[in-house]
Amino acid sequence: MSATIHFIGQIKTPYRTLKECPNNIQSDGPICQITLNPEFHRELAGLEAGQNILILYWLGYQEQAAALSSANPCTSGRGTFALRTPCRPNPIGAAVLPIETIENGQITVRGLDCLDNTQLLDIKPAIYQEGAIG
Amino acid sequence: MSATIHFIGQIKTPYRTLKECPNNIQSDGPICQITLNPEFHRELAGLEAGQNILILYWLGYQEQAAALSSANPCTSGRGTFALRTPCRPNPIGAAVLPIETIENGQITVRGLDCLDNTQLLDIKPAIYQEGAIG
Repeated sequence: MSATIHFIGQIKTPYRTLKECPNNIQSDGPICQITLNPEFHRELAGLEAGQNILILYWLGYQEQAAALSSANPCTSGRGTFALRTPCRPNPIGAAVLPIETIENGQITVRGLDCLDNTQLLDIKPAIYQEGAIG
Repeated sequence: MSATIHFIGQIKTPYRTLKECPNNIQSDGPICQITLNPEFHRELAGLEAGQNILILYWLGYQEQAAALSSANPCTSGRGTFALRTPCRPNPIGAAVLPIETIENGQITVRGLDCLDNTQLLDIKPAIYQEGAIG
């Protein structure tokens, strides 16, 4: 059973290749720009700079990620769901980060862990805080 | 542009109707059972009781949610992305909760905010902690 998800915007990051891309978010990392498609600009109303948001995005390059890794994370001792690898049944990336700026349908945040031109799936007000794994 | 997501398991909760269902997760709420499809059981290797996981699930009942609410969250003053309503372009639910038990392809957690038989999309080790909204 399956469903269709729609790309609602795009994420600009400094990373053009998976080798450049960090494995996880870096709260002090470089500025990344999230641009919503025009029909969704008004749906950002109520979000403000400084607020933590949960960002969901589509890691559509999971096959490249698996090929790049000599120790393929899909077949390592730990199962897929114990890892944050992009190589998973539904390659949805998730990050909780504070909004740096928000205007004209664009949000900037620091330190996303995805390639340039990654497709955006959703933004929600976060009820989580960054913390240690576990 | 779009992509296909696959349902990888099911979530059992006490909630048969949206009126019964809480609006957000409740860390002291009732036990909910996540059952992975058999082909994914071994992908849970490495997860342990007590560990925080990020659970992603498909809120496929968003049309019902919109119809139920007399103050339709889709048309309220705050935009969709400033709300955690199921009524959104991609109705993906997200919760960070500690594992209560894990065995035989089943995980139990407390206090999910979705209907009984909700479809599972992903589980990741959480790098977030529950916190106040904002």
